[in-house]
Amino acid sequence: MPSISQRALEVPLSPIRKLASYAERAKAMGRKVYHLNIGQPDIETPAAAMQRLREIDLKVLEYSPTEGWLSTRKAFARSMKKFGVQVDPDEVTVTTGASEGIQLLLFSCFNPGEEIIIPEPFYANYNGFAQIADVVVRPITSYIENGFALPGIADFERVINERTRGIFLNNPNNPTGAFYSREMLEQLALLVKQYNLYLIVDEVYRDFCYEGQDFFSVLRLEGLEDNVIVVDSVSKKFSACGARIGTIITRNPDVLEAVSRYGKLRLSPPGLGQLLGEFLCELDDNYMDEAQDEYRRRRDLLYRRLTGMKGVQAYLPGGAFYCFAKFPVENADHFCQWLLEEFEHEGATLMLAPGAAFYATPGLGTDEVRIAYVLNEHDLDKAMDCLEQALAIYPYSTIKSYSEAKV
Amino acid sequence: MPSISQRALEVPLSPIRKLASYAERAKAMGRKVYHLNIGQPDIETPAAAMQRLREIDLKVLEYSPTEGWLSTRKAFARSMKKFGVQVDPDEVTVTTGASEGIQLLLFSCFNPGEEIIIPEPFYANYNGFAQIADVVVRPITSYIENGFALPGIADFERVINERTRGIFLNNPNNPTGAFYSREMLEQLALLVKQYNLYLIVDEVYRDFCYEGQDFFSVLRLEGLEDNVIVVDSVSKKFSACGARIGTIITRNPDVLEAVSRYGKLRLSPPGLGQLLGEFLCELDDNYMDEAQDEYRRRRDLLYRRLTGMKGVQAYLPGGAFYCFAKFPVENADHFCQWLLEEFEHEGATLMLAPGAAFYATPGLGTDEVRIAYVLNEHDLDKAMDCLEQALAIYPYSTIKSYSEAKV
Repeated sequence: MPSISQRALEVPLSPIRKLASYAERAKAMGRKVYHLNIGQPDIETPAAAMQRLREIDLKVLEYSPTEGWLSTRKAFARSMKKFGVQVDPDEVTVTTGASEGIQLLLFSCFNPGEEIIIPEPFYANYNGFAQIADVVVRPITSYIENGFALPGIADFERVINERTRGIFLNNPNNPTGAFYSREMLEQLALLVKQYNLYLIVDEVYRDFCYEGQDFFSVLRLEGLEDNVIVVDSVSKKFSACGARIGTIITRNPDVLEAVSRYGKLRLSPPGLGQLLGEFLCELDDNYMDEAQDEYRRRRDLLYRRLTGMKGVQAYLPGGAFYCFAKFPVENADHFCQWLLEEFEHEGATLMLAPGAAFYATPGLGTDEVRIAYVLNEHDLDKAMDCLEQALAIYPYSTIKSYSEAKV
Repeated sequence: MPSISQRALEVPLSPIRKLASYAERAKAMGRKVYHLNIGQPDIETPAAAMQRLREIDLKVLEYSPTEGWLSTRKAFARSMKKFGVQVDPDEVTVTTGASEGIQLLLFSCFNPGEEIIIPEPFYANYNGFAQIADVVVRPITSYIENGFALPGIADFERVINERTRGIFLNNPNNPTGAFYSREMLEQLALLVKQYNLYLIVDEVYRDFCYEGQDFFSVLRLEGLEDNVIVVDSVSKKFSACGARIGTIITRNPDVLEAVSRYGKLRLSPPGLGQLLGEFLCELDDNYMDEAQDEYRRRRDLLYRRLTGMKGVQAYLPGGAFYCFAKFPVENADHFCQWLLEEFEHEGATLMLAPGAAFYATPGLGTDEVRIAYVLNEHDLDKAMDCLEQALAIYPYSTIKSYSEAKV
């Protein structure tokens, strides 16, 4: 038998993957599993946009242009206005999800062996994208103690070297829910300019900011038109993960041209998803406002429940729909597996994403867990009942007795 | 301004790309352009499948599993039965078009610097996929004189070395329309077995075979279950290029696992396209029969017209919807550009794909052209009127006078 490639064996796997089979077994045994492990919202995809898609009388489902239909790019460009960003449709490229967008950018902007700085913990698949493109990830650590705020400028500067080509952020952040402010981004901009770097920001959660702050897109940074690239997607904001539609937005014509060269190889982004994406962008703001309110209520409930549990260290996430919490356990991988394999509370258990895989630095995050609040309040509350009960009886808890509890 | 990567500058570009701006200009000047340059069929996407898609009441357009919905994989597996192939749904992975399938396979089966043998001329984007995955393409030349038949076994064996990991075919072939017979594939199978290689076959045109021959899928090769991988797509057969839905089919569990590892990074293939793909697979055979008849008539017309033109060397393509012809010109790149820039016949001209970019060996194909018969007979005939007239007046024709004409 011909063997598969060595690099395929080395693809960084999602922290959730190993647990999936345990979840299946738990379900097969009749237990309900609350899935707080993935970023798949339960909220309905806007029915009005789905209906418009149904009403199209499309005779031939043909290739779109490489960069997407002009009408779709126009809709995405217009949708940036509410964030104070004026972009031309030609500065928007439609991609097969933000996932493809990030891959296209790594190939377009980085030569093999060049480095990208990413604050950790970060979305685990960035590691895989970097491996495919042979780009080196240089992590700089953010900490739960200050709600995973953006590291200081000195932390970024410390790891910059002659191979550094860019800084990559996710704002608001998956997995931490951290929200990066305008002030912090403006400081970072000075560094980006000084070292002539790319500043690539994954803004797929920008519609989910809960503290009344204005989201500040890096596309508003003045004088950084050639450095700034934004990645976006309809997946999270419109609960349309399956559309596989994202965008790359930049005013740098060379980057657009390079992305187009790679993009032409795969011909075009998905056609039906593009049409849906266009209609989603054209919805009025009611949908987003309601979705944001819904997520805010969930966040508040989650935070209240977590802070009420002994030994759990949590913070109030400023955006996205994740919370990254520290649990009183030595090994969160084991705890998450134990939840699925051994634990049951009123016929149910929950699935969480262990924290270590979100760090590039070995040894970090071993007692941390990402919780996606993608279930309705009732289910989320039930899941928190399970968690509280589980932490109380987990045999490898670091809390030996009530008196030793940190909280 | 940060510079884009060197590798982005080196992405092999499609032969058509350079011509696109000339085509736009011709249209802007009011000329009709017959597009015989791309594999975008004009035939309607089956209305029955589009209607089924409309009728689905989908509340949340969520991620599918990495490998695609089980129902979709079942439909694709069942659709192989008419080719005498029995495969399990677990042996089918849904991909974002055949383009993604090929890329996933190059990463999964080849380490950087390893080699893949491909008969040339071949689909130009294979070069780009190989560049992305850092795989070396070893071309072996097929010739117009025998209708671009599969090269002999000795030709394959000559280029096999310790870095060779696989052979890649496209059957029926784009750009040549060549159809590879069961006998030839069975001979090749012996070689594949002997050298423990992968045999990867892009079968996206297998429904278009015009000579009454049975299409022989390599999935029917006995004893090669671990070596054979088939790539497929709904794009061409169902005129659904914009769905971006393809499949990888193999009985090699390690390859499926490796593909899944890479596939997980991009989460899932397009959801709406998957549903459409499922419905397309479930159509009765009428659509395919009619489409095949239509393409056969176009092929016959094209062949009749080409062989009636002075100095044009053509052959009757056995499958797909392309013909690769030799023209009495020194430089087909120039001729194709001249068609768009300088030529007009009854207010129209045509766009063709110059041949050289379909070869990996420099200097080959410079007087050859790919013609996609993706227009209806009336338009195709009109386009051939243009071509005949153009060849007669092209100032750089290699035919100096009628008496020198080869045909």
